[in-house]
Amino acid sequence: MSTASLIVIGSELTRGIIQDRHGQLVSRELTHIGVHMNEIVALPDDGSVSHVLSALKKSNDIIIVTGGLGPTGDDLTRSAIAESYGVPLVEDPSCMEFLIKRLGPRASGANLKQAYIPEGFSVMPNPNGTAPGFYGTDGKSLILALPGPPREMEPMFFSYALPVIRRALELPESERDEYSSFITAEARLEELMEQCGPGLDWGTRFQDYKISVYVSGADKEERDKAVSALINEVGPLRLVPGCIDALDILIEKLKEKNLTICVSESCSGGLASERLTSRPGSSSFFLGGVVSYAPSVKMDVLKVDEKIVGQYGVVSAECAEAMADGVRKICCSDVAFSITGVAGPDESEGKAVGTVYLGFSSKDRETQSVLLDFSSWGRDSVRRKAVVSAFLLTSCYIDGMDVADIVKGWKNI
Amino acid sequence: MSTASLIVIGSELTRGIIQDRHGQLVSRELTHIGVHMNEIVALPDDGSVSHVLSALKKSNDIIIVTGGLGPTGDDLTRSAIAESYGVPLVEDPSCMEFLIKRLGPRASGANLKQAYIPEGFSVMPNPNGTAPGFYGTDGKSLILALPGPPREMEPMFFSYALPVIRRALELPESERDEYSSFITAEARLEELMEQCGPGLDWGTRFQDYKISVYVSGADKEERDKAVSALINEVGPLRLVPGCIDALDILIEKLKEKNLTICVSESCSGGLASERLTSRPGSSSFFLGGVVSYAPSVKMDVLKVDEKIVGQYGVVSAECAEAMADGVRKICCSDVAFSITGVAGPDESEGKAVGTVYLGFSSKDRETQSVLLDFSSWGRDSVRRKAVVSAFLLTSCYIDGMDVADIVKGWKNI
Repeated sequence: MSTASLIVIGSELTRGIIQDRHGQLVSRELTHIGVHMNEIVALPDDGSVSHVLSALKKSNDIIIVTGGLGPTGDDLTRSAIAESYGVPLVEDPSCMEFLIKRLGPRASGANLKQAYIPEGFSVMPNPNGTAPGFYGTDGKSLILALPGPPREMEPMFFSYALPVIRRALELPESERDEYSSFITAEARLEELMEQCGPGLDWGTRFQDYKISVYVSGADKEERDKAVSALINEVGPLRLVPGCIDALDILIEKLKEKNLTICVSESCSGGLASERLTSRPGSSSFFLGGVVSYAPSVKMDVLKVDEKIVGQYGVVSAECAEAMADGVRKICCSDVAFSITGVAGPDESEGKAVGTVYLGFSSKDRETQSVLLDFSSWGRDSVRRKAVVSAFLLTSCYIDGMDVADIVKGWKNI
Repeated sequence: MSTASLIVIGSELTRGIIQDRHGQLVSRELTHIGVHMNEIVALPDDGSVSHVLSALKKSNDIIIVTGGLGPTGDDLTRSAIAESYGVPLVEDPSCMEFLIKRLGPRASGANLKQAYIPEGFSVMPNPNGTAPGFYGTDGKSLILALPGPPREMEPMFFSYALPVIRRALELPESERDEYSSFITAEARLEELMEQCGPGLDWGTRFQDYKISVYVSGADKEERDKAVSALINEVGPLRLVPGCIDALDILIEKLKEKNLTICVSESCSGGLASERLTSRPGSSSFFLGGVVSYAPSVKMDVLKVDEKIVGQYGVVSAECAEAMADGVRKICCSDVAFSITGVAGPDESEGKAVGTVYLGFSSKDRETQSVLLDFSSWGRDSVRRKAVVSAFLLTSCYIDGMDVADIVKGWKNI
């Protein structure tokens, strides 16, 4: 696997005045073409690029340097590269012509310094600024220098630098499959990945509402076999292809079937509604919701029968179903779901923290409910996992599936 | 001048999946106390931290490492540091006790690895996660290791790491005043700070629901004078002492007066309810809410008069007041607020994106409403700023103040 490092130069970065943007861009694009990023290094404009460059040259096939190409005295990148690659700086006639034309009366000694590049190197034109980029190799490592300002660097990176790198490495497209995993613990998922595909390269990235899973290595068939084994371990719906949120799975289903939805929430406190309305255009499917936090609101607004609350409690299958039916009726939607449970930190009605009931109601089929056990999680996670579960299970419920059956298959929550 | 470098560990950084946030924070704060940042290095979770650490130890007085402290197999920071500083990893009893308590049934071998720190090092507690931080020295360089997730790293950095560094550099205890600013634009706030106290050291840190503001330099009297000028520039309630959320200001007021609250939301889609229930114990003051996204839900559930919707539209003072009254009546709470507006991306009813009306209702006083203009903001910001404004203004409304008067004083939103 080819390796690369990025050096980002600018005292405004190491003084915390601005935030680097090039690190993410370059590493994402190089990762995409199968290059392993060794380091992203931010340095001040003090000439320290020289020794960092010398060190990185030894262990990288590709080095990209951004910044330090301007006309001011502390822009030392061009001489550091020339020195490191053992060549003098020479005037590039086409750059000089471009600069004199662009700068007009401002063309002066300091400005014209930008037309000098290491001997034998090639120019990458900069239509958005004065400093051209350049690239070259000493036969061992390829180095590319680009200007620092994002509006100059980014177009040059895509138009010139990336094609130069692809040609130099003759790399095939990287083979990497991406999945999204829901209501799992990252540490547990990583253990399972190792069990299901020990020879493969797995990666995870935790986000608030999902874990992104990457797998590469071996061939597609072997990767698919390992992923199937992993899906079998976690159970249905909890590992799906692509980078997708549970919310989007539900929204797609609602749009496909042209259905409207509303929700009633207790322990999740409005999070499901907030998520459903986070996407522009959500008014086409989302009518509204009731956050029935207090038992009185469940009875007064959602018309949950007082006897249900008295007999089964508000954290019960019966209450979840009555909440889902109730909100669907008062908001006049096609489908609805409800969430009632114990988010913690303290238990409630003798039910443990993490006990959550979801209810599902539709004008087209019977009301259902499921019990979920998030007892190993804290308050915020219980709320998030309850909402994500509701999104996943509602999309199945709309499809006529038995939601209790699906939950039975969920292991290692 | 003392020198420092930062190592930020995470393959999600070198694969371009996420953008580093620690580089700017750490370099800004260290620059602020007179430390020269030599390098900010991002590395993958592949153990390469070992050789980078060895190289940086030679030329830095202070090394900060973030990330790589979690329970998963690719988190190698703790052993790399122990090795580099020539000490074994040993169990820290207080960390072990904290972890077993926090993890409960999830406490396992991999998770408990986090209680091991290099021998002779000191722990920095992590109330927001499982991995503690730690610091130590070999007599030449001071090293500090902090967890990677920003919500764990940032509080630990300010509460523990920065004071440790100040002591090591023998800097005097800093006189630093902290404030929280609401519904402001960070860039505009920074301009105003410079105008109001040009000789002082100001700092800001943007969070989702507030901006933390720091000021140091000169004496207390001069700092207070500058802050007063700044408060005068932004208007009442928008810059308050201490690190506090608008949500907490409202919650304190509700508890002080022993009042219950409920909310009705349109454009904020449940965010106000979600925030109000995000704190443990919220059931003592929060009864519930109605997310009346569709006009039909405003009329059917909240009993907003059809004539109001027809005559003024759902984005109007009249509708906001009717929503607040309606939700207070159906949920039987002492007070209520409502949010209705245009979050975008498209305008609605001929009203521009960012137009927001808030309504306030109480059993003890007349209903009020205000109009806010967040037209320079995008969808997510409009929703957040509407909710934060509602929290601030409801706490004033409860106190008998005229909310329209307060909003009149808000400048530079």
